[in-house]
Amino acid sequence: MERIEHHASFGGWQDVYRHRSEVLDCDMEVGVYFPPQADPGHPDHGPCPVLYWLSGLTCSAQNFITKAGAQRHAAEHGLILVAPDTSPRGDAVADAEGYDLGQGAGFYVNATQAPWDAHYRMYDYIVDELPAWVEADPVASGARAISGHSMGGHGALVIALRNPGRYRSVSAFSPIVAPSRVPWGEKAFGAYLGADRDAWAAYDAVALVAGAEERLPLLVDQGGDDEFLSGQLKPELLQAACDAAGHPLTLRLQPGYDHSYYFIASFIGEHIAHHARALRRKA
Amino acid sequence: MERIEHHASFGGWQDVYRHRSEVLDCDMEVGVYFPPQADPGHPDHGPCPVLYWLSGLTCSAQNFITKAGAQRHAAEHGLILVAPDTSPRGDAVADAEGYDLGQGAGFYVNATQAPWDAHYRMYDYIVDELPAWVEADPVASGARAISGHSMGGHGALVIALRNPGRYRSVSAFSPIVAPSRVPWGEKAFGAYLGADRDAWAAYDAVALVAGAEERLPLLVDQGGDDEFLSGQLKPELLQAACDAAGHPLTLRLQPGYDHSYYFIASFIGEHIAHHARALRRKA
Repeated sequence: MERIEHHASFGGWQDVYRHRSEVLDCDMEVGVYFPPQADPGHPDHGPCPVLYWLSGLTCSAQNFITKAGAQRHAAEHGLILVAPDTSPRGDAVADAEGYDLGQGAGFYVNATQAPWDAHYRMYDYIVDELPAWVEADPVASGARAISGHSMGGHGALVIALRNPGRYRSVSAFSPIVAPSRVPWGEKAFGAYLGADRDAWAAYDAVALVAGAEERLPLLVDQGGDDEFLSGQLKPELLQAACDAAGHPLTLRLQPGYDHSYYFIASFIGEHIAHHARALRRKA
Repeated sequence: MERIEHHASFGGWQDVYRHRSEVLDCDMEVGVYFPPQADPGHPDHGPCPVLYWLSGLTCSAQNFITKAGAQRHAAEHGLILVAPDTSPRGDAVADAEGYDLGQGAGFYVNATQAPWDAHYRMYDYIVDELPAWVEADPVASGARAISGHSMGGHGALVIALRNPGRYRSVSAFSPIVAPSRVPWGEKAFGAYLGADRDAWAAYDAVALVAGAEERLPLLVDQGGDDEFLSGQLKPELLQAACDAAGHPLTLRLQPGYDHSYYFIASFIGEHIAHHARALRRKA
């Protein structure tokens, strides 16, 4: 494990680490923000809860930490922010032409098809290996929340729905709510999981809502002028699934906003406050 | 004039424009943030003051608008933010090897030496042409402030000191306060202005303070762990010059902070509040 960046930020520290992932069989970079309360000299020092952020297509560990402006809010609420990369990386890792398959496009699944199955196990990485690595640090309290954007919003919803009790709260910006039924997801799932669509349902938030063991409320913000709204994101499918299952959903359509980090930056403060409320509650 | 980006941001709009600069004899890109108060439908609608932001070496019109998180604060205070590029651009524009001369490194001077004098007139562009273009829009109130980072902090200080009455307030992050006396400035001024160092003083904040016609207070934040602090920035020279001249200076050394946008993001809110106080005063 190697710390490759270390920047003072809002009284805390924005770090980037490179660590070995056994699950992915490659080195991975991860952004970790430590709020001021993580410092032993801080008057409110103590173990801090962790918010995991899953980024979207084409992103690395850099996009969220440089563009979202989340550190201000994490500092205010005393949260650690963990922002991993979006796929395994490296010359030995399979890749594809195009931005929506291969490196930068892991889709938070465990691939079962060659050549992807050798490295593309982002689901296990995010659910198990990464938290075990992060939370080995005693500054992490063990309380956990998850959020993300677009492909990462899909990842956050799926991972929270499949792991009852593991996250105190979940939210998403512009998530791909039904990847089985839109072009991005069909391409990625076809490659990573194969042609049998039954295998896809385990990674499809809309398909998972009906059988969710835990009715963890979903907070979703969606830009009204998002260029991918009708073709790839389809939040109305999540609304219908939640209505049918009686699953609590707050879906907010934000007029005028697009798919960019300008949208995320505008509302990340509200999401972090939402997670902080859940994370402060006693387990 | 062409609008090439348009993103909803904190209730306002982050735009990027491409416009023809006669002074620079090339097309230039400029980021402009319009706060919610710029919208005729907003209850507090009215002409808004403008804060000009000058970026540092290697930056384009993108760095500040994507990384500083300034829109949140501009929206709160009802300021327009204008973030121009750092040099003339294009295949027809002279350039040099290295990040610290040529395109991306205009140093906010009017070059007098060939080949630079054909396009490198960033001083005139920032002082005259850009404000005339921006403030032709009746949503701009005519009240003006200026700030910047590193090379852009140098530009902001020099431009405010040389133009009494033109800016209500000035601030800088990690400015190159004495370019005539540090390697970055010696290289750039030698190329753009020639070997006669007397010509350099007109672009050197430390040299200008003694003769400033207006004692406009300077607000300067400087990271204590900035890798360029002792070799290129030397804020102690500005402190000494202001002490000698009786020029008001608030110089804050921020322990632990480096030269990056993580530093700017951490304190831009305080700078924007500082400018908003000055801009709200009646002229």
